[in-house]
Amino acid sequence: MAAADVRPSGLVTLLTDFGVDDTFVGVMKGVLHGRSPSLRAVIDLTHEIAPQDVEEAADQLAEAWRWFPPGTVHIAVVDPGVGSSRAVLAARREQHVFLAPDNGLLSRVLAIDDEVRELDVRRFALADASRTFHGRDVFAPAAAAWVEGLSFAALGPLARDWRRLTASAPVRLGGGRLAGRVRRVDHFGNLITDIDRATVAELVSARGVAATLRVRIGDHELPLVATYADVPPGRLAALINSSGLVEVARRDGDAARHLGLGRGAELHLEIEP
Amino acid sequence: MAAADVRPSGLVTLLTDFGVDDTFVGVMKGVLHGRSPSLRAVIDLTHEIAPQDVEEAADQLAEAWRWFPPGTVHIAVVDPGVGSSRAVLAARREQHVFLAPDNGLLSRVLAIDDEVRELDVRRFALADASRTFHGRDVFAPAAAAWVEGLSFAALGPLARDWRRLTASAPVRLGGGRLAGRVRRVDHFGNLITDIDRATVAELVSARGVAATLRVRIGDHELPLVATYADVPPGRLAALINSSGLVEVARRDGDAARHLGLGRGAELHLEIEP
Amino acid sequence: MAAADVRPSGLVTLLTDFGVDDTFVGVMKGVLHGRSPSLRAVIDLTHEIAPQDVEEAADQLAEAWRWFPPGTVHIAVVDPGVGSSRAVLAARREQHVFLAPDNGLLSRVLAIDDEVRELDVRRFALADASRTFHGRDVFAPAAAAWVEGLSFAALGPLARDWRRLTASAPVRLGGGRLAGRVRRVDHFGNLITDIDRATVAELVSARGVAATLRVRIGDHELPLVATYADVPPGRLAALINSSGLVEVARRDGDAARHLGLGRGAELHLEIEP
Repeated sequence: MAAADVRPSGLVTLLTDFGVDDTFVGVMKGVLHGRSPSLRAVIDLTHEIAPQDVEEAADQLAEAWRWFPPGTVHIAVVDPGVGSSRAVLAARREQHVFLAPDNGLLSRVLAIDDEVRELDVRRFALADASRTFHGRDVFAPAAAAWVEGLSFAALGPLARDWRRLTASAPVRLGGGRLAGRVRRVDHFGNLITDIDRATVAELVSARGVAATLRVRIGDHELPLVATYADVPPGRLAALINSSGLVEVARRDGDAARHLGLGRGAELHLEIEP
Repeated sequence: MAAADVRPSGLVTLLTDFGVDDTFVGVMKGVLHGRSPSLRAVIDLTHEIAPQDVEEAADQLAEAWRWFPPGTVHIAVVDPGVGSSRAVLAARREQHVFLAPDNGLLSRVLAIDDEVRELDVRRFALADASRTFHGRDVFAPAAAAWVEGLSFAALGPLARDWRRLTASAPVRLGGGRLAGRVRRVDHFGNLITDIDRATVAELVSARGVAATLRVRIGDHELPLVATYADVPPGRLAALINSSGLVEVARRDGDAARHLGLGRGAELHLEIEP
Repeated sequence: MAAADVRPSGLVTLLTDFGVDDTFVGVMKGVLHGRSPSLRAVIDLTHEIAPQDVEEAADQLAEAWRWFPPGTVHIAVVDPGVGSSRAVLAARREQHVFLAPDNGLLSRVLAIDDEVRELDVRRFALADASRTFHGRDVFAPAAAAWVEGLSFAALGPLARDWRRLTASAPVRLGGGRLAGRVRRVDHFGNLITDIDRATVAELVSARGVAATLRVRIGDHELPLVATYADVPPGRLAALINSSGLVEVARRDGDAARHLGLGRGAELHLEIEP
């Protein structure tokens, strides 16, 4: 695993709960650019994670990181334990590097055999580092050091253990039925669930290729379609979205508001008889 | 028109209705940077177009694109028809390149003799492209290919036709009067109308240089001034804004909220007797 | 002071009240990149300053600029007087360059002996410059010129005078007590005050190292702790934040909402008896 080091792409992504009303994000970029002349770009994934919502951050990061080139560093800071004794992780998966507090934020990204290190915070912390803003004082300088050529192993010793969130997962109910949950609501009001393409395929293959699927949510029974435009404006439908997850959408509208449903809501995926 | 190809500036702009709560915009940048090592910067115009509001997107793009250097690619994605059979346009105007769904979004940018092509979606789509997120799977790879040196003609065949929005336009009422409409409200609450500088100039020149203008909107009669500071704080005024459009503003305040007016509201421009 | 010129870092920061719903910020970047091929990156500090709130802008800029490398240009545009006769300042402090309207915005950044020039607006203004959007038409081209190698002195003549905001400042009450005020509320609902680390240190040193401090705000008496995690979830505490200012926070919560307090609220810092 240690093997040859990944070559930095010069790209750094940021995912935080900092919002954009303050200068938190800007000063992180100041530190990154100031310490890394080879930086190509710092890219915002989002800074609108609900404050302290590690689970939402974990989901969003999992959907986004693959779309960047190998050698990208992903800094994710949703960090209610900042300044306490919580560790900072430096992890590596498929030639991507991740920096995040050890609070479960990387749960949906890392697999069992990925290389996970405990960042040597003292080595990378800025002089006079604060105890409330490690994004600026610890994560940014560590990322910059790696982009400038430091080996991954030099970020810190292998972590003996790290925190994982317990994931909600769809439940097979028998009779070609599956129960899932809404994980988050996107900007368009689409309800994004915990049922992924592989789970759908498995359900179908158990019944044979001719199977047609539908989704029950609230009082509604919805067809599983290929894209929004497959139903008339204003109509609800389910589809497999661009992250490979079952999503409930309302064409040209807001499904979450229309249904009055959000995170945690249950839905059923069924094979039509 | 085909003639010599434009040389890419290395800049790409994005204008969408994606918002910034999700990672949609970030992953588009990931694909762009991953496929285009010569990219200088990806610049957000705005991601806060109201969902599916093609008309607002068309207006905002029209006000913004000229401020970029020649060779810039402008990606505009407000795309309720994504995944349907709607075409994607690749257009060229004054050495700028535009990529947008064929739904009228380029109506306010393109003129009759501009070169408009139908993007060869299959050629540029990522493997396993989704049917719900062409910003990432089609627009970004096509833009990257052009920035990396592909000729404009190679983006696809000439389009036989493309959709135009019917524009609201000011109406001459006679007697040195003109009726216009509010097209959108900006962040400061300024009401931006469909009356442009040329139309104002024409009205004045019909009467002679000594003409003084005023605007009637709601119950108010406003002077046409040169800048916000020409009236006292809290006072309403009309002016020709930085995009060359007549705008109704309230000094140090929010005209839209103060007047209770928004998009579609009528106003009159008159020559003072 | 004039001495040798600072070498540009190729970084430009932006701090405005423009919001991100319109394309104002994007077109400023278009002008900057179009006129400055050596630009490395344009970094947003924030665009969510309340409209026309020069004081908030001054505070936010003061907290942010030091985190950028020497040679960075900071453009700050909260500019209710745009288009009037107000001057534009070009200032230099510790190898950083600042461009801002002369309305007090640089009050918290500049010291008495910093070099402050009055920008030669006519020299840098774009042809057909508007009278309502100097961010695009004046500030951006001036910044680009300096990044491209123009000397600082060439930006304009030394300013004879410039506007300063009168700052709220903590008041010594005697008996080891200090009265301060909330200056702004951040994204997390933390109340950021006008009491800085040096003032706290002075209060403590007057009493000796064994002194313990507490903060009174509203009906609450709070310990001064080192970081959020030093108190249980939901509990209020005071701490010295990452900008070196006393801040009132609620762990994993929103102190401003919880207390019903905001800008201007009074608080007392006391030595425990």
